Amino acid sequence: MIKNIYDSIIIGASAGGISAAIYLKRNNLNFLIIAKDIGGEMALSGIIENYPGFPVTNGVELTRKFKEHMEKYKIQPLNEKVILLEKDNSNFLVKTENNVYLTKTVIVATGSTPKKLNVPGEEKFFHKGVSYCSVCDLPLFQNKVVAIVGGGNSANEAGIMGSKICKKVYIINKNPEMKGDKILIEELKAKQNVEIIYNALTQEIYGYQFVEGIKYLDKSTNEIKDLKVDGVFIHIGLKPNSNFIPDEWGVKNEYGEIIINQLGQTKINGLFAAGDVTNIPHKQIGIAVGQGIISALEVARYLSTKG
Amino acid sequence: MIKNIYDSIIIGASAGGISAAIYLKRNNLNFLIIAKDIGGEMALSGIIENYPGFPVTNGVELTRKFKEHMEKYKIQPLNEKVILLEKDNSNFLVKTENNVYLTKTVIVATGSTPKKLNVPGEEKFFHKGVSYCSVCDLPLFQNKVVAIVGGGNSANEAGIMGSKICKKVYIINKNPEMKGDKILIEELKAKQNVEIIYNALTQEIYGYQFVEGIKYLDKSTNEIKDLKVDGVFIHIGLKPNSNFIPDEWGVKNEYGEIIINQLGQTKINGLFAAGDVTNIPHKQIGIAVGQGIISALEVARYLSTKG
Repeated sequence: MIKNIYDSIIIGASAGGISAAIYLKRNNLNFLIIAKDIGGEMALSGIIENYPGFPVTNGVELTRKFKEHMEKYKIQPLNEKVILLEKDNSNFLVKTENNVYLTKTVIVATGSTPKKLNVPGEEKFFHKGVSYCSVCDLPLFQNKVVAIVGGGNSANEAGIMGSKICKKVYIINKNPEMKGDKILIEELKAKQNVEIIYNALTQEIYGYQFVEGIKYLDKSTNEIKDLKVDGVFIHIGLKPNSNFIPDEWGVKNEYGEIIINQLGQTKINGLFAAGDVTNIPHKQIGIAVGQGIISALEVARYLSTKG
Repeated sequence: MIKNIYDSIIIGASAGGISAAIYLKRNNLNFLIIAKDIGGEMALSGIIENYPGFPVTNGVELTRKFKEHMEKYKIQPLNEKVILLEKDNSNFLVKTENNVYLTKTVIVATGSTPKKLNVPGEEKFFHKGVSYCSVCDLPLFQNKVVAIVGGGNSANEAGIMGSKICKKVYIINKNPEMKGDKILIEELKAKQNVEIIYNALTQEIYGYQFVEGIKYLDKSTNEIKDLKVDGVFIHIGLKPNSNFIPDEWGVKNEYGEIIINQLGQTKINGLFAAGDVTNIPHKQIGIAVGQGIISALEVARYLSTKG
């Protein structure tokens, strides 16, 4: 039934997966890149000032550049969702909703997805004032009031961006201080129209047809407080997209991240990983790129030694 | 005598070092970046088609982009040559030809330098027809005849570039086949004006005021052969720039490469490395970038846990 065996299948087409694909192609390997979208979290990033070589860009623009790079090599991602990875002797079966593919190696570069608050109104008002993508949606809130929920770099970046667009930006942070790059935190705190609320647990997002406000528990006073806002941006962390890898394989840590060494290898021969889905504690585009390249070159080496 | 202690000193200002510097700056750390040049081997690269996000660029152009990125953050490399690294309790002394700097951490990103053939005429005709930088110097050889000595990716790339500029390109390869990316090798072999000479050991580069020819030993016939060429480009490998690190520290392998783990750590606390100077077998700009970023973020973490 399965006629073709691939040299490699890359799962995911964001920074890590695209970088791996470019290198597999340059090595003339027979591979697929399967992804449910292009750019992943990169595409949802706001202003990007830390991908070396691009002094200033943004997620949409940088994704376009990566896509252009892929198209130059005539690499066309397959738009399918991978649901299960299985072993088949020394090979792998990659199962999507409609197909099964056989391959000698796999590079997992599926990234991670934004965590949900799981509060009333979050789902109801999604795309009606609730967003997980500041760069996509903040420009819709010119001179409006928004709340950004979170306390790390994504929240910092969203806050800085929002300060330039919106009339007022609240940062709702459950912790007693902001985390992330100090330079960003200082920039955020210097903004006149940004107000950081600490020790604040979001309880509810409410409205009628569109978001009208947000309620939070002030942990220092134990009071429920209410802010009138037009939009809510949620930046509370990321969950690795690794569910399709069986837990029994023992390649994931307690957070679901894939454990790799400096060559992108997992403890299963032929299974590699790169980018935000791995246990490298820093989730950065430039790191995903480096790991995607290493994985691809290690795939090439693995295949040539395997014969 | 030494008044100041830095959080970190980055040695080297090419892809890895500049990436590290951008991230240290974003973390508001007090650091120096010391380098004898900017861009290192990256600046000497020909056409670059594998730094993700830049479908086509070249070494000069990409170095300019990295420099621009660094200048945006007001990072100014110190133009000195590091001659020795010493330990000073838990800190490090970085000794240059004229100064000594004290620092809590060090990121070594010094890259590697081209290997010499060590044949008569190589030194005499340097910059008079002999070059280690195809992208800088091939354009000077419009409609001329050049020899490229080497058998790997750099030689492949130089050959392809040369085929578009020169009348004739010889590749002088001591091995019986070309190594490196198959896609490049195929492209090179398809060029009408490129002739690959295998099993050929370069003996001498000769001329009067300028290169006029090259002699090699044909290992299959044991004859010395002579080619009339106007230029010789040498691409026979790289030597890691790690001499200033004491061998007794045991952080280098037999090739002089610095041994790192996936977090850029060496076995000495506070000493990190990134890029071509490390033992990662693949020497690529995108990999150096990823490792530079990881090292910088690990420096930040090391300093915050060290207090």
